[in-house]
Amino acid sequence: MASVRMRGFLGTTSFLEARKKFFDAANPKVSESEKISIYGALGRVLAEDVIAEDDVPNFDRAAMDGFAVRASDTFGASQTNPIIFEVIGQVQIGSIFDVKIGKNQAASIVTGATLPEGADAVVMLEYTRRLRENEIEIITSITPGENVSKRGEDIKKGEIILRKGAILKPQDIGVIASLNRTLVEVVRKPIVAVMTTGNELVEPGETIQPGKIIDTDRIVLLNMVLEAGGIPLDLGRAQDNLEEIKSKLKIGAEKADIVVITGGTSVGIRDYVHEAIESLGKLIVHGIAMRPAKPTGLGIIGGKPVVSLSGYPVAAMVGFDQFVKPLIEKMSGKCEELKPIIRAQSTRRIASSPGVREFIRVIVFEKDGKLFFEPLKIRGSGILSSMVKANGLVIIPENKEGIEAGEEVEITLFKPIVK
Amino acid sequence: MASVRMRGFLGTTSFLEARKKFFDAANPKVSESEKISIYGALGRVLAEDVIAEDDVPNFDRAAMDGFAVRASDTFGASQTNPIIFEVIGQVQIGSIFDVKIGKNQAASIVTGATLPEGADAVVMLEYTRRLRENEIEIITSITPGENVSKRGEDIKKGEIILRKGAILKPQDIGVIASLNRTLVEVVRKPIVAVMTTGNELVEPGETIQPGKIIDTDRIVLLNMVLEAGGIPLDLGRAQDNLEEIKSKLKIGAEKADIVVITGGTSVGIRDYVHEAIESLGKLIVHGIAMRPAKPTGLGIIGGKPVVSLSGYPVAAMVGFDQFVKPLIEKMSGKCEELKPIIRAQSTRRIASSPGVREFIRVIVFEKDGKLFFEPLKIRGSGILSSMVKANGLVIIPENKEGIEAGEEVEITLFKPIVK
Repeated sequence: MASVRMRGFLGTTSFLEARKKFFDAANPKVSESEKISIYGALGRVLAEDVIAEDDVPNFDRAAMDGFAVRASDTFGASQTNPIIFEVIGQVQIGSIFDVKIGKNQAASIVTGATLPEGADAVVMLEYTRRLRENEIEIITSITPGENVSKRGEDIKKGEIILRKGAILKPQDIGVIASLNRTLVEVVRKPIVAVMTTGNELVEPGETIQPGKIIDTDRIVLLNMVLEAGGIPLDLGRAQDNLEEIKSKLKIGAEKADIVVITGGTSVGIRDYVHEAIESLGKLIVHGIAMRPAKPTGLGIIGGKPVVSLSGYPVAAMVGFDQFVKPLIEKMSGKCEELKPIIRAQSTRRIASSPGVREFIRVIVFEKDGKLFFEPLKIRGSGILSSMVKANGLVIIPENKEGIEAGEEVEITLFKPIVK
Repeated sequence: MASVRMRGFLGTTSFLEARKKFFDAANPKVSESEKISIYGALGRVLAEDVIAEDDVPNFDRAAMDGFAVRASDTFGASQTNPIIFEVIGQVQIGSIFDVKIGKNQAASIVTGATLPEGADAVVMLEYTRRLRENEIEIITSITPGENVSKRGEDIKKGEIILRKGAILKPQDIGVIASLNRTLVEVVRKPIVAVMTTGNELVEPGETIQPGKIIDTDRIVLLNMVLEAGGIPLDLGRAQDNLEEIKSKLKIGAEKADIVVITGGTSVGIRDYVHEAIESLGKLIVHGIAMRPAKPTGLGIIGGKPVVSLSGYPVAAMVGFDQFVKPLIEKMSGKCEELKPIIRAQSTRRIASSPGVREFIRVIVFEKDGKLFFEPLKIRGSGILSSMVKANGLVIIPENKEGIEAGEEVEITLFKPIVK
């Protein structure tokens, strides 16, 4: 065991290799599905192809207010040659008119009402003149189907209207409701357990003794789980104590789909996290060629992926984004995402180390209609406020030697552009 | 009253004039604030400037594992000229070391631990050699402040760290926690009442009688309220009956900040919605030069804005986006938003009517690394499934005569780009 603690970061693994090894071992799968009410389905990931079992709508409807007629009876009608029709009634919206429309007969109808039997078109109100209570003249000739919304116009029977993996939007839920369904099969959200370690940590709201600092990592990570679409499970905080860390990790691996632990990941005498992971399962990677988040550890306990993040807040957030978020997304079954990626020019040269994947916090701003970005502090992964001040993240891959001044690169925005 | 029903759409108001008249009359204000727990604050809009009342951290910390010393005592030390230090103890993380570091004294320290009194720098473990239990030699000379995270490094006392109107991200909540706060002042979410009208409507899950259709508008609009950041209040469905519509509208105007009603907005004998609005309050605009959503009505009841949307689902969604969502955002105090707006080329010419603002549903796709869009059906605002198939919306302003084939325009994406 001691070997884990002492090995330190002598051997760091490349970012891409670390990710491959870990995801191969973790082998995340889309979670099983659950049937839920459509009334609580916004934003959930669809676990079924939604197929129309009937036409929507399943009857022909008037698309205009006017009179339902047989189109052929209007042929030849014009301003100068009106044709007289007998009005045999009024079609109520939402009910069935039970008289068949015959030759030169009409029924008054409103938009959305079912076209009565016999009729095949609707003549608009403005092309008619009422002669008496039950008689009108029609002053235009119309074609069959005119001003009629056909059965199946919205959705045809058998059509696949939504596919597995769609993230349900309001209109998607509306379409499922239009198929007369109230339940929908969605992917169960993965449960992500989060714990922190450290004798120096206290909860916010307590009186802070000298030397103590507030455990901000846990609240940040629990919220990142929520934001990524997982269900956060708060395991609380462990003291720097092997048994306490092991006991919480064990609970996490039993109850959750993914376990996240922070702190204790520096090379120090008090580093029990990786020892705990190795004693309960397997540590696959420890020390990754990336900055920040180099001390990230990736392991498996009881078949569940375990990510040990740096206790430094920025490093913890970058590590989460790179190793935990993809697991959550995979298990959530998401096959789509709307990421605001933009391109902007660097205001200055940014150096980077070859062989290391660098994650640079930047401020993206607009000037004279163009987008620029300025790097924030390049180091200082303990500076949580830098993630509050930055609005974007630039990744410099291993094989790229920094970014030149004026160079345009891709940026993932997480806050709005400064104007 | 009858005049409202009969006036019809003879006079449509221009889109911009309608919006101005309505927002002037509604005069939406940012809602009052409420104090909530930081643990449930993700995505909420900040109603206060968050100011640091103390430095974060409020003590100097070791930034490396090693020994805390007085830097000046190391001056001149090197591989060939090591300087011997007495180790007077070990600084525990999270507690205070109560002995002052004197000349040529050192205390072993781990990353994050409080720098003991007297010390002003940390020498890294690898530049030291242990001679015996309480004696080391140091083989490098360091400068004051080296390997020390200074008090206030993250946040300085008095600094405004977050401003009113920010939408709280995980890191923002972490920063508020780091100020030892557990409560935060956020803007109360506006309550938006939604009701539909129509004898032909039924709830999903019921047996559908001939001529009936499922009320999809209400579930779509309730979810659009949620998505826009409001609290949906479901008023249910009214029959086409003036008294029933009035009674529900009245409840909505009492209980909610905004009232949304659909249906009954065509020119027909059964159109009671605008009559109901005029009898309870004031109808400001009815009939707007836009497509779809021309029959949209805008009014005020008891000081609350009331938006009457077309019963056609696409028109209802466009009307909501243009008239209800801006109200919700204004009342929510949002001064930022991350809208995925992209630019793409039209695959074909799209005609539009001058003087009318057109909202075109499109499919945006990538081909050979370029973005293109193809319009879906231009008409057919009853076709809810078109909003499921489209992934973006293009707006053609009144003074623009359509879009040429190959022309590049801005598109608001609401689903991912097709690859």
